[in-house]
Amino acid sequence: MRIHDLPHPSALPGVPDAAPGASLLAPFEAHESQVRSYCRAFPTVFGRAKGALLFDAGGRRYLDFFAGAGTLAFGHNPDFIKQRLLDYLQADGITHGLDLYTEAKAAFIDSFVQRVLAPRALDYRLQFTGPTGANAVEAALKIARKTTGRHGIFAFSGAYHGLSLGSLAVTANRGKRAAAGTALHDATFVPFPDEHLGAEAVLAWIERLIVDTHSGVEKPAAVILETLQAEGGIKLAPTAWLRELHALLQRHGVLLIVDDIQVGCHRSGPFFSFERAGITPDIVVLSKAISGYGLPMSLVLLQPQLDLWQPGEHTGTFRGNQLAFVGGRAGLELAARLDLQAEVERKGRLCAQRLGERVAGLDPRLAVRGLGLIWGVDGAALGDAFMTRVSARCFELGLVIETAGRRDTVLKLLPPLTIPDAELEEGLAIIEQAVQDSLRG
Amino acid sequence: MRIHDLPHPSALPGVPDAAPGASLLAPFEAHESQVRSYCRAFPTVFGRAKGALLFDAGGRRYLDFFAGAGTLAFGHNPDFIKQRLLDYLQADGITHGLDLYTEAKAAFIDSFVQRVLAPRALDYRLQFTGPTGANAVEAALKIARKTTGRHGIFAFSGAYHGLSLGSLAVTANRGKRAAAGTALHDATFVPFPDEHLGAEAVLAWIERLIVDTHSGVEKPAAVILETLQAEGGIKLAPTAWLRELHALLQRHGVLLIVDDIQVGCHRSGPFFSFERAGITPDIVVLSKAISGYGLPMSLVLLQPQLDLWQPGEHTGTFRGNQLAFVGGRAGLELAARLDLQAEVERKGRLCAQRLGERVAGLDPRLAVRGLGLIWGVDGAALGDAFMTRVSARCFELGLVIETAGRRDTVLKLLPPLTIPDAELEEGLAIIEQAVQDSLRG
Amino acid sequence: MRIHDLPHPSALPGVPDAAPGASLLAPFEAHESQVRSYCRAFPTVFGRAKGALLFDAGGRRYLDFFAGAGTLAFGHNPDFIKQRLLDYLQADGITHGLDLYTEAKAAFIDSFVQRVLAPRALDYRLQFTGPTGANAVEAALKIARKTTGRHGIFAFSGAYHGLSLGSLAVTANRGKRAAAGTALHDATFVPFPDEHLGAEAVLAWIERLIVDTHSGVEKPAAVILETLQAEGGIKLAPTAWLRELHALLQRHGVLLIVDDIQVGCHRSGPFFSFERAGITPDIVVLSKAISGYGLPMSLVLLQPQLDLWQPGEHTGTFRGNQLAFVGGRAGLELAARLDLQAEVERKGRLCAQRLGERVAGLDPRLAVRGLGLIWGVDGAALGDAFMTRVSARCFELGLVIETAGRRDTVLKLLPPLTIPDAELEEGLAIIEQAVQDSLRG
Amino acid sequence: MRIHDLPHPSALPGVPDAAPGASLLAPFEAHESQVRSYCRAFPTVFGRAKGALLFDAGGRRYLDFFAGAGTLAFGHNPDFIKQRLLDYLQADGITHGLDLYTEAKAAFIDSFVQRVLAPRALDYRLQFTGPTGANAVEAALKIARKTTGRHGIFAFSGAYHGLSLGSLAVTANRGKRAAAGTALHDATFVPFPDEHLGAEAVLAWIERLIVDTHSGVEKPAAVILETLQAEGGIKLAPTAWLRELHALLQRHGVLLIVDDIQVGCHRSGPFFSFERAGITPDIVVLSKAISGYGLPMSLVLLQPQLDLWQPGEHTGTFRGNQLAFVGGRAGLELAARLDLQAEVERKGRLCAQRLGERVAGLDPRLAVRGLGLIWGVDGAALGDAFMTRVSARCFELGLVIETAGRRDTVLKLLPPLTIPDAELEEGLAIIEQAVQDSLRG
Repeated sequence: MRIHDLPHPSALPGVPDAAPGASLLAPFEAHESQVRSYCRAFPTVFGRAKGALLFDAGGRRYLDFFAGAGTLAFGHNPDFIKQRLLDYLQADGITHGLDLYTEAKAAFIDSFVQRVLAPRALDYRLQFTGPTGANAVEAALKIARKTTGRHGIFAFSGAYHGLSLGSLAVTANRGKRAAAGTALHDATFVPFPDEHLGAEAVLAWIERLIVDTHSGVEKPAAVILETLQAEGGIKLAPTAWLRELHALLQRHGVLLIVDDIQVGCHRSGPFFSFERAGITPDIVVLSKAISGYGLPMSLVLLQPQLDLWQPGEHTGTFRGNQLAFVGGRAGLELAARLDLQAEVERKGRLCAQRLGERVAGLDPRLAVRGLGLIWGVDGAALGDAFMTRVSARCFELGLVIETAGRRDTVLKLLPPLTIPDAELEEGLAIIEQAVQDSLRG
Repeated sequence: MRIHDLPHPSALPGVPDAAPGASLLAPFEAHESQVRSYCRAFPTVFGRAKGALLFDAGGRRYLDFFAGAGTLAFGHNPDFIKQRLLDYLQADGITHGLDLYTEAKAAFIDSFVQRVLAPRALDYRLQFTGPTGANAVEAALKIARKTTGRHGIFAFSGAYHGLSLGSLAVTANRGKRAAAGTALHDATFVPFPDEHLGAEAVLAWIERLIVDTHSGVEKPAAVILETLQAEGGIKLAPTAWLRELHALLQRHGVLLIVDDIQVGCHRSGPFFSFERAGITPDIVVLSKAISGYGLPMSLVLLQPQLDLWQPGEHTGTFRGNQLAFVGGRAGLELAARLDLQAEVERKGRLCAQRLGERVAGLDPRLAVRGLGLIWGVDGAALGDAFMTRVSARCFELGLVIETAGRRDTVLKLLPPLTIPDAELEEGLAIIEQAVQDSLRG
Repeated sequence: MRIHDLPHPSALPGVPDAAPGASLLAPFEAHESQVRSYCRAFPTVFGRAKGALLFDAGGRRYLDFFAGAGTLAFGHNPDFIKQRLLDYLQADGITHGLDLYTEAKAAFIDSFVQRVLAPRALDYRLQFTGPTGANAVEAALKIARKTTGRHGIFAFSGAYHGLSLGSLAVTANRGKRAAAGTALHDATFVPFPDEHLGAEAVLAWIERLIVDTHSGVEKPAAVILETLQAEGGIKLAPTAWLRELHALLQRHGVLLIVDDIQVGCHRSGPFFSFERAGITPDIVVLSKAISGYGLPMSLVLLQPQLDLWQPGEHTGTFRGNQLAFVGGRAGLELAARLDLQAEVERKGRLCAQRLGERVAGLDPRLAVRGLGLIWGVDGAALGDAFMTRVSARCFELGLVIETAGRRDTVLKLLPPLTIPDAELEEGLAIIEQAVQDSLRG
Repeated sequence: MRIHDLPHPSALPGVPDAAPGASLLAPFEAHESQVRSYCRAFPTVFGRAKGALLFDAGGRRYLDFFAGAGTLAFGHNPDFIKQRLLDYLQADGITHGLDLYTEAKAAFIDSFVQRVLAPRALDYRLQFTGPTGANAVEAALKIARKTTGRHGIFAFSGAYHGLSLGSLAVTANRGKRAAAGTALHDATFVPFPDEHLGAEAVLAWIERLIVDTHSGVEKPAAVILETLQAEGGIKLAPTAWLRELHALLQRHGVLLIVDDIQVGCHRSGPFFSFERAGITPDIVVLSKAISGYGLPMSLVLLQPQLDLWQPGEHTGTFRGNQLAFVGGRAGLELAARLDLQAEVERKGRLCAQRLGERVAGLDPRLAVRGLGLIWGVDGAALGDAFMTRVSARCFELGLVIETAGRRDTVLKLLPPLTIPDAELEEGLAIIEQAVQDSLRG
């Protein structure tokens, strides 16, 4: 079945018929909390989806450069994985398993070890946490504190690690922090190297904070890092700086936690985003794309000597989402079949070239940054509203794409990694058009 | 297809063949974190499951009185819901939707409003959070703090609300709290009425804490309550006390949050556990059984005047688990078809009678408590190890059942709500046998 | 020189002449912070003082039933101590000594050991802290946490231990707490036994909080206690309850800190307020009256096994106020000469009788509570403003006396312990008059 | 009476005779807490003192370059102030006054306004706090938080502001912080400009923390600053940097609190240390030398618009130390008579020259820093133990002098401001000798 042959979405099984049009939004407006957010930028009711395409209830087709905030590495409902899920469901494979031993989990573990860890000579223990990235971050911070006996965590300005209190404490966004309504403790923010404070000064300050007995801050348990800040506005840590930071932390016995929730699973090219620096973090956090199909799943990777958990010290009802294990195993197989790393790097070059030439070329105040298949077009110099306008214009033109960064000034490209070249080009062309229109407007 | 005809689990699609026997545990022992817990009490590899039955890789059949810690209200893989999920997957309904408007979500909302809220004359806004109970609790606490402008939360000794830092702050278990490795703030614990401190004294102390300008504690934003403490050891709050507490809080403008994660969705009989007291909480938290199929999903219900969220103030990648919406809608329909409340109440009477006569009758030091289909056999007076021994003996006899409460001294019965009477009787008989054996041993 | 022969205060050495009248308040109103407080209740400018008498700049005489909030046990400027101070100053004894060894400190230590500790068979180490009660409380809490390795402190509703953040965390008054502007942590408030919650229920709850592994609260380092809550409204802990509490804490290895800042130094009769219960706290905090002359000084008494301080772990520039050492030593000698305990107990009986008959007799809604020479007349049942009115009326009649307790509803009698009987009777008569007038008004 | 004619100290009034020798230390060792600190570096029992001279019980004379950690600006027991105190005591001036209006306080206020504020065109409200620097810092932080409605305070690495929890939260020393035994919150440490991170980078980072909505840190209420870090190792903030910092904070509505406890009151030359930069802080904290005689006293200066205290929001029993008011007023008069600023600046030049030539000249690894009459000789490059050895050698040679800074590697000169030139030269010569001896040893 080709995507264009899909029946009208209003006939979706398990979903009642509904008249098209604005009245479709009524149930949400009447009953769903005001906290809903993305739907306000993309105000239509989506029904079905395939690959890089979304279809709304009226049958309109959208290109998806958002991909579930990076979750849908293989696009929507990839057939290869879908078939595995259908078979598993059909056969009454166990669906909800807490942390019982199950065949589906055994298979996922085996696959992850064979396909991801072994080829990279990595030795990590796998901890399955509640299936949100935030929960995995909470677990990572707990075990870092437990194994070091220290309390402090260093996080970076611009960081985003989730919104539960433990993960929110290391998330930099003031608005999100204020929403806690209670104090967020034991996190020290340090500068992410950028135009404001250079890589060397940043390392100097981090080292002073760690070694100076009068720094005001205890020696931390760990540093938590996104090697590429996604929500922070597509900001890349320099590769050499990553190496120096890692060496610095090792020298002082401070753990390095890499949050690869958004930029792991091949988003940056290699499976892990830190591979470009050749470093091995003490702890890695994965989620989003790891299930291959957008199913909730999260994972913490721990160096064996850090696996000092007592049984049940961190638990959660949905930490064994078996469908996600099935999907995740299929996803790892699919990535291998597709040689996904090479594919992402090739498309990354295409993005770099198109965005650099055609989009950044439109106005000298635009900046383009990215890696693999995560790219940002920074329009901060054009005012706070500019990129929100571009995103809205893209939507009119049939492209779903979000903004990120301070005051939403960076257009953020997160297409499925498996997007066909034609659709990637189509999306890039829409962006070019929308920026052009917005510059004029 | 009847459950007994299921093929050998090792042939589960998407799962590799494996030799039966102890070697099956090897991949978990080699690669999975020490944090794994339930698998230690039930050391076998489960493959498939149906209704109240679990099958391990060796084909052995187990009765399931654990039901995913109450998640599997309809048992494993109920066909009615399964078919809806298969159809939706087949049709490429959108699987991962963040908080976009989708047809699956619209259908779930409509169903929840029509089947749950409207018949009870309840007016709540629905907030879909990250799909863990802990995340929903975090959201509930945030909005309680925001809307009241106060910081403190009162929680009860014995309470369990989750393990992310925000929810852990209101969870009473010292071991879980210590694992935080950082301070847990802005929670004040008050006594849950029990044999140690009576219901009246508890209310007196809560009222003093609220009204006394020298109580040492600021007036709280909210009280978070399980009307029946499940992890706390199957402890029921008296119905009259629930009403008095609610009135007290209303008098002083303190919000009441009911955590119905484990005991909502008909576990106690009616859909909400607080219906027995005729009260309407300000905020309700649901999760576990709400998706009908064990899929990760969580929900916060807010009185409309409390829905003061800014868009995106609390978000999460998996807050729109579309398969869970499809399952949840089907589950609500199924509950209605089965007249689930009456069914649960009937089986509850059966449990009360069997446990009271046959189990509690075995030793005067045993106590039985419960409601609907959540029951506890308290063996604290027989020593800390007793009920763990009973649980282990049950497993030998083919019944999966957990312990709860202080030092795991309470055997906790959580069978699927739809368990056939014969299997319920079978499980109760195994419990009787296991207690008998343990009393002898 | 008899007090009535004192020259006009405006001729006080070191103080410039000033015209009497309202203009005297001008410099304070122009330049002193709004935080000033007692002066608003007693709006005159005081110049000199002797014994239980205060004289304002206009030469008006006031009886002092406030005595520096209990600091002036021997009244103002007692000659016996004054002469020692003058001699010491004259001889250029060292005045400011940090924690250097000095002769004045040696002499104080010797005197305190011989006169206070030895006769009571007490073995405490003396720690001289920054000369505020709050600072001594901070030190007591630090060492309790250090020696136990635990963080939590239990404090009582109604408690007052000071306003620096550490001591404020265990102070119950909401207004004072809110003024912190930051979170106050690691304190758990428990009920002080009173008409709202009886002594037995209080002990039951404290024990549950300590022993219950699901209490929500870690086992605390210590309980901090005023055996008689002074600022809290002259509330006495029952003697038997004090013994039971102490036994309970000893059973569970939780330290007992008695804050005797206001009610120690013979205020309740014996030197320590806890002597009435025959208990030996692990840590005792003294300040206020300890210097004998109203000079800033504070002291922590530590059971020897708790003296695990590292040198300099808690320091402060004024922790060696040498004049206070000289005054304190003289005060201990003077107390012995006067047989102060017997004297206080005798006067206490007089207060009990007079207040009981003449004051409480005026209205059945008045209640009288006290011990030694600290007494309260509780007028809460007559409205929040009543006792403030009584205090103001007393001032008009020439008596300085303060209110305490919730909403300042308790008139608090704190005369010098050495007040002549005639002046004590005079003050009591003024109180009677003022209550009478206020009941009429 | 000249100092050399002083009688043998063991005859000090109010102090018992004691045999000289080591046994003199016995009472301290037996009864005083292990927390005692300075006495370990200067193990003798001091009796009397005058000017820059201390005498021990054996009659030995010591030059005092410590001066009560800077408290004794006029040296020990200056006759001009002493006479005022004696007269006041003799006349029974009120000694303990809480925050009542008193003549002594009126006189101090008048003097402070006329002699300190008016000539500098400063308009501050005076808040008298508990008589420790720490307590004044606590008050300053509270009012900064209250008036801004914000919680965070920025403090500097190397900072020392006291050891009560509120002041400790902004003190940088890890050992002192760890002694809290509880969390220290709402303080963010920023670099003090030094050889590790330059003045410009520091300002850039502070500004980023304030303005960046993703800095991870809320906009702070205030920055608390020592313009010259004393305990931190005699580190001077550059004058231009002070101006830029002040301008930056004003631009963003962040308050500047200057802690002038140790370096105010003419220690750096002018009355306030910040005068060298021509800035006017929003809040100033004074203590130590302010009473003129080493008597406990502390003071907060508030810009009038910040004086939003409620009466009694921050109080303390000893906040009205009347003798300190008398001493403080006399001290202000004495400073004027002596033209203290010019005197300090002249002696500062002498120190700079002698230390630079004779001491720093002894080894290229020694560094000299200072201002007015606070100077440091930094020997960190000679190892952690070096300066402790020098200090011990000085004591053998009859000079009391302390170390400061990280690992006590900076010899800290704090002579009385009124020290005669001959004694200043004598002390400098001893230092030269001791360094020489230690370099050899």
